[in-house]
Amino acid sequence: MVRPKKIVVIGGVAGGMSAATRLRRLDEQADIVVLERSGYVSFANCGLPYHLSGTIEQRSSLMLQTPASLAARFALDVRVKSEAVEINRDAKTVIVRNLETKNEYVESYDFLILSPGAAPVMPGQPGAERAMSMRDIEDLDRAMAWLESKPTTALVLGGGFIGIEVAENLVKRGIQVTLLQRGNQLMKNLDPEMAVMLTTRMRAAGVDLRFNTTAREFTKKTVTLSTGEEISADVIFSAMGVRPEIGLAQLAGLRIGENGGIWVDAEQRTSDPSIFAVGDAAEKTDSISGEPRLATLAGLANRHGHSVANAIAQAPVVPATPALGTSIVTFEGLAAASVGWTETALRAESRNIRIVHAHPANHAAYYPGAETMRLKLIVDADTDKILGAQGVGGSGVDKRIDVIATAMFAGITASNLAQLELAYDPQHGSAKDPVNMLGYINRNIAEGFTRTIEWHQLELFRNEGWEILDVRTVGEHRFGAMPESINIPLDTLRENLEHLRGKKVVVHCQVGQRGHTATRILTQEGVEAVNLDGGYLTWKAGMASKGDQK
Amino acid sequence: MVRPKKIVVIGGVAGGMSAATRLRRLDEQADIVVLERSGYVSFANCGLPYHLSGTIEQRSSLMLQTPASLAARFALDVRVKSEAVEINRDAKTVIVRNLETKNEYVESYDFLILSPGAAPVMPGQPGAERAMSMRDIEDLDRAMAWLESKPTTALVLGGGFIGIEVAENLVKRGIQVTLLQRGNQLMKNLDPEMAVMLTTRMRAAGVDLRFNTTAREFTKKTVTLSTGEEISADVIFSAMGVRPEIGLAQLAGLRIGENGGIWVDAEQRTSDPSIFAVGDAAEKTDSISGEPRLATLAGLANRHGHSVANAIAQAPVVPATPALGTSIVTFEGLAAASVGWTETALRAESRNIRIVHAHPANHAAYYPGAETMRLKLIVDADTDKILGAQGVGGSGVDKRIDVIATAMFAGITASNLAQLELAYDPQHGSAKDPVNMLGYINRNIAEGFTRTIEWHQLELFRNEGWEILDVRTVGEHRFGAMPESINIPLDTLRENLEHLRGKKVVVHCQVGQRGHTATRILTQEGVEAVNLDGGYLTWKAGMASKGDQK
Ligand SMILES: Cc1cc2nc3c(=O)[nH]c(=O)nc-3n(C[C@H](O)[C@H](O)[C@H](O)COP(=O)(O)OP(=O)(O)OC[C@H]3O[C@@H](n4cnc5c(N)ncnc54)[C@H](O)[C@@H]3O)c2cc1C
Ligand SMILES: Cc1cc2nc3c(=O)[nH]c(=O)nc-3n(C[C@H](O)[C@H](O)[C@H](O)COP(=O)(O)OP(=O)(O)OC[C@H]3O[C@@H](n4cnc5c(N)ncnc54)[C@H](O)[C@@H]3O)c2cc1C
Ligand SMILES: CC(C)(COP(=O)(O)OP(=O)(O)OC[C@H]1O[C@@H](n2cnc3c(N)ncnc32)[C@H](O)[C@@H]1OP(=O)(O)O)[C@@H](O)C(=O)NCCC(=O)NCCS
Ligand SMILES: CC(C)(COP(=O)(O)OP(=O)(O)OC[C@H]1O[C@@H](n2cnc3c(N)ncnc32)[C@H](O)[C@@H]1OP(=O)(O)O)[C@@H](O)C(=O)NCCC(=O)NCCS
Repeated sequence: MVRPKKIVVIGGVAGGMSAATRLRRLDEQADIVVLERSGYVSFANCGLPYHLSGTIEQRSSLMLQTPASLAARFALDVRVKSEAVEINRDAKTVIVRNLETKNEYVESYDFLILSPGAAPVMPGQPGAERAMSMRDIEDLDRAMAWLESKPTTALVLGGGFIGIEVAENLVKRGIQVTLLQRGNQLMKNLDPEMAVMLTTRMRAAGVDLRFNTTAREFTKKTVTLSTGEEISADVIFSAMGVRPEIGLAQLAGLRIGENGGIWVDAEQRTSDPSIFAVGDAAEKTDSISGEPRLATLAGLANRHGHSVANAIAQAPVVPATPALGTSIVTFEGLAAASVGWTETALRAESRNIRIVHAHPANHAAYYPGAETMRLKLIVDADTDKILGAQGVGGSGVDKRIDVIATAMFAGITASNLAQLELAYDPQHGSAKDPVNMLGYINRNIAEGFTRTIEWHQLELFRNEGWEILDVRTVGEHRFGAMPESINIPLDTLRENLEHLRGKKVVVHCQVGQRGHTATRILTQEGVEAVNLDGGYLTWKAGMASKGDQK
Repeated sequence: MVRPKKIVVIGGVAGGMSAATRLRRLDEQADIVVLERSGYVSFANCGLPYHLSGTIEQRSSLMLQTPASLAARFALDVRVKSEAVEINRDAKTVIVRNLETKNEYVESYDFLILSPGAAPVMPGQPGAERAMSMRDIEDLDRAMAWLESKPTTALVLGGGFIGIEVAENLVKRGIQVTLLQRGNQLMKNLDPEMAVMLTTRMRAAGVDLRFNTTAREFTKKTVTLSTGEEISADVIFSAMGVRPEIGLAQLAGLRIGENGGIWVDAEQRTSDPSIFAVGDAAEKTDSISGEPRLATLAGLANRHGHSVANAIAQAPVVPATPALGTSIVTFEGLAAASVGWTETALRAESRNIRIVHAHPANHAAYYPGAETMRLKLIVDADTDKILGAQGVGGSGVDKRIDVIATAMFAGITASNLAQLELAYDPQHGSAKDPVNMLGYINRNIAEGFTRTIEWHQLELFRNEGWEILDVRTVGEHRFGAMPESINIPLDTLRENLEHLRGKKVVVHCQVGQRGHTATRILTQEGVEAVNLDGGYLTWKAGMASKGDQK
C-alpha cells in the first residue's frame, strides 16, 4: 500500500479550507492538517461588519464550520490557535506554535498550501494602538466588547469596502461616524462620478465623510486630523486596506511577486513545486493588463483553493483565468459594483478608450417600483473589447455587472452586448435590457454614427467655442441647467434648426438618450454636434465629485 | 437631389416602431409611414395584465408613445385604426383601410416592414364568443369594462406566460380563478419538476388549476369542462398561445416558414428583397438546433426592428444571432425563468445530456433574508456545451438565468461557469455564486468524478436492485423520506461503511451537496454509489409533478 499523502494547510478560512475539503473529496486516504492561528476556522469574513449592528443577529451564524464539524464530515485534522512559524523547505516541515501552550512542534508535509490571507494596514501615529480592525472573529469580539461601553462617536479610517461596511453598521447602531479618506473619493475601483453616489448616500445617512484627510494623532477619546481639527472618537476602526501575509513565505525564500504577494503560476504553485499559495496572500494575473496584481476577493480564494486540491491530487486542473476583480459593496441598499479597470486607470495609461454612461431603470418603467441605476461601460476603442464596467444603484445593479463580467470572461465585444438575450418581464427587465442598451450606445459611437464627449471634457469644448444645447423640456431646463446653455427641447428641434446652422454644439439631455436623437438630427442637417455622454446627470455627478477633489 | 426613401411599416408596436424610430435616426429625410390597425401604438403589451388588478394603476402608463409624440420627436407619419389589407409587390404598394371611415387607399413603398405580431388562439366551442383575449389596449378596455360588472368567477384557458399573468391579476382583484391547461404542466419551457413550483404557488394563492382539462361548452355564466363538470365563469380569458399573423404575407405570396411564421434571412429580409419582417410574425433560427422556430418575445422584436432599419438605411447590420428564447414569468413574486431547451425536449430527440439541479440561496445564507431558489442546468454530455437552464424562485433567479444566457451566447462551456467572477457581497451573492456551483457540479460529472442519476431514473435503479441511502440527519429523514431508504447521516458515514460494502447505492441528501461528498467517500471505499441529482427536494418536486400527469 502506498503511503497516504500528507498535506498541511496554513490558514483555515476561505482559500485554505476550500482546498482542504475538496482535497478530501479527491483523496479519502490523505492526511490533511489545517493550521489556523486564530481561534476559528471557516468563518464568514464578509459578514463580520454586519454583526456590529445586529443585522446579522447571531454571532454563531458567522461560523460556517467548526474543527469538530470538519472532522466529522471531512476527516480533517483542524488545529486552531496554531500558528505556522517557519517552513523548512528542504526537510519539508513546518514549525507550528500552539498559541495556547506556547509549545512548538514540527509537522512534515508532502505538499504545503499557504492561504494566510492579508493583514489590515494599521495606523502608526501616536495613540493609534487603540485602533481596531475587522478581519476575524477575535476582531469582532473586541469590537462588540467596545460597543458594550455605549460609545457615541467613531472614526473609520479608509473608504474602501470594509470602511464603508463598518460605517454603515455603526450608523445603524446610532453612532456618529466620521470617515477619513486619504484620497479624494471612495472606492478606487470606481470612477469619481460613480463613487460620488455613495458619498452622497453616506452623507445623507449622517456619515461625516472627509476626503484628502488623515489622522495626525490619537488621544483616548479624540483624534486630531491633518487639517488640525480635533474630533471626538470613542472608537477607531482601521480599514485602510490590507497587505498580503507573506512573512512565512519570505522567510522560506519563496519568490515574492512585484505587487508584494506570493508569486504563483496558473496552478497556484509557488517557486517551490511542493508549495502552493492561494487567496489574498497570492498574486493573480490581471485580465486587462496581463500583469501581476493583487485581488482580495473571497470568490478567487475559494476557486483557487479548489484548484490547488486538484493539482495536488493530480485531478484535472483548470489553470487560473486572469482576474477581472468583479466586486460589489452595499451601503444601506445602495449597491456599487465594478469589474475590470476604471476610466481613471486606463487614461493614466493613455489607453484609447470609449466610455458609455447610462441611467436605465432596473425594470420596465411602467411597472411600479422601478428604480434608476447608473451604469458605465469602458471599451477599448480599437478592438471593441470591454475593459470595465461600473454600476451604482438599488436592485438590479449586481445583475448587470455580473452579465458584463460574464461577457468579459467570454471575450465578447461591447457591441455584442446589444445582442444578448436577457430575461424580460415587467418585474425584471426591459425589452431592451440596460446591458443591451450599453451595447447599442457603444455601437453607435464605434461605428461613428454618433460622437460623444465625456463630462470632464465639456470645459475643453466650451473653451474651443462649442455651444451647449440642452434638448430637455423647458421645465427640466428651468429646474437645473448648465451655465450658458441654450434650451431647445428635442421635440421642437426641427423647427429651430436655423438658430443652430453654422455652429458647433455639444448637445445634452438628462441622461444622453434624447441627446442622441438630437445629435442625429443635427448631424444630418449639417450642424456639427456631439452628444454629452450620460447627459446632465453624469455631468452633475462629475461636478459634485470635484467638490471633494480640492 | 435624390428622392427620399419611402418606408411603410405595418404594425406600430414593439418591432414596427423600433424599426421606425431607428430609421429616423439613420435617415432624417426618409418618408416613414406606420400603419396600425388598433387605436394605439407603442404600448406596453407586456404590462397589460397588470392593469386588471390595478398593480399598474394608470392605463396611460401603458402608452409609451402616441402618434403625436412620435410625429414631434421622430417625424413619423403614424396612422392608427389603419389596416393594411393587401400588398401589391409588383407595384410596391399597400392597400390601407381606414377602419373609421372604411375608406381604402393605396400607399406606395420602397421598403416595407412587416411587424404585425401574433394573434391569440381563441376557443371555437359553442358559446366561446364571450371569451376575451389580452393582446392590445382594446382587449384591456373590454376586460376592464367587464370587471366593472363585479364578476366573482373567471376561467383562464391556458397556462403559459399570459395565462399565469392574467390569473395573478384576477386573483389579486379577489376573483375566483379556474385555469385549464390542456397538457400536464404549466409553461412548456420548463421541465415538470421545475414547473410544479409554480403550480404549488398558484394553488396556494387560490387558483383552481386543472391539468389535462379543456372546455367543452360555454354558457352565459358557466363552462362545462372536458371532465363533464360544470363550473361558474363570469369571465373567460383565452391565453392558449398565439399564432403569427401571416395573412397579409401569405396573400402577397411571401415565403412562409415551416413553423408557420414569415420566412426571413438573418437580416430579416423576406423572400421579397424589398420587404422585411420582424417580431412575433417572423420566424427565428433556434440557437440549439439551428432549425427555424417561433419566439414571441419583446426583446427579439425590438432588436430585429432595429436591425431592419440598418439594413434599409444601408448602415452596418449585425446578422440576427440564433434565438435562445430567454424568458421569465412571475406569479406573486415567484419568478420562473428559462433559456434554451428543456430536458424533456432534448430527451425526446435522444440527445446525450447531463443534468444538474441545485437549490442555492440567492445570497449568503448567513445574511438575513436569504431565499432558496431552484436551478437546473442542461448540458451536452459530449461537448460540455450548455443547452439550457431553468430557475424558479424569488429574487436573484433572473440574474442567474441572465448570466447563463450570456454564457450560452458566448459559447463558453458548462464547466467554465465555475470560473466566472461574479460580484459577491453578503447581500448579493456567495463566494461561490449559484452559477459557479452549477459549473462545479457539472464538472464533477463531466470528469467522471461523480456519477449522478435523475429523479425520474430512481425507480429504474431501485428495480435493478440499488438501495437508497439517505445521508441527511436523522431529524430530516424522520420529517420526510423516500420509501425503503436507509438513513446514515453523512457525518457518521465513515463509521458505517461495513453496512454498505458490496452493495449498490443511490445516495441522496436534501439537495445533492452532502450526497456528493458521501458518494465520493463511498466510491473511494469501493462501494458502488451514485448521487441523486438535486436530492430529496428535486425528487419530491418531480413526484409532485407526476400527480398532475394522470
Ligand atoms: C470585513 C471583511 C469583509 C469582506 N467582504 C468581502 C466581500 O463582500 N466580498 C468578497 O469577495 N470578499 C470580501 N472580503 C475578503 C475575503 O474575505 C477574502 O478575500 C478571503 O477571505 C481571502 O481568503 P484567504 O484564505 O486568503 O484568507 P482568510 O480567509 O483571511 O484566511 C486566512 C487565515 O489564515 C490565518 N493565518 C495567517 N497566517 C497564519 C499562520 N502563519 N499560521 C496559521 N494561520 C495563519 C489567519 O488567521 C486567517 O484566519 C472581506 C474581508 C473582510 C475582512
Ligand atoms: C399580455 C402580454 C404579455 C407579454 N409579456 C411579455 C413579457 O413579459 N416578455 C416578453 O419578452 N414578451 C412579452 N410579450 C410578447 C411581446 O409583447 C411580443 O413579443 C412583442 O410585442 C412582439 O412585437 P411585434 O411587433 O411582433 O408585435 P406587436 O407588438 O403585437 O405589434 C403588432 C401590431 O401590428 C398590428 N397589426 C397587425 N396586422 C396589421 C395590419 N394588417 N395592418 C396594420 N396593423 C396591423 C397589431 O394591431 C399590433 O398592434 C407579451 C405579450 C402579451 C400580449
Ligand atoms: C465552506 C468551506 C468549508 C468549503 O466547503 P466545501 O464543501 O468545499 O464547499 P461548499 O460548501 O461551497 O460546497 C461545494 C461542493 O459541493 C458540491 N455541491 C454543491 N451543491 C451541490 C449539489 N446540489 N449537488 C452536488 N454537489 C454539490 C460542489 O460541487 C462542491 O464540490 P467539489 O468541490 O467537489 O466540486 C470553505 O469554503 C470555507 O471555509 N468557507 C468559509 C470562509 C469563506 O469562504 N469566507 C469568505 C466568504 S464570507
Ligand atoms: C419605444 C419605441 C418607440 C422605440 O423607441 P427608440 O427611441 O428606438 O428606443 P428606446 O426608447 O429604447 O431608445 C433606444 C435608443 O436610444 C439610445 N440610447 C438609450 N440610452 C441612451 C443614452 N443614455 N445615451 C445615448 N443614447 C442612448 C439607444 O442607443 C437607441 O438608439 P439607436 O437605436 O439609435 O441605437 C418602441 O420600442 C416601442 O414602441 N416600444 C413599445 C412596445 C414594446 O416594446 N412592447 C414590448 C415590451 S412591453
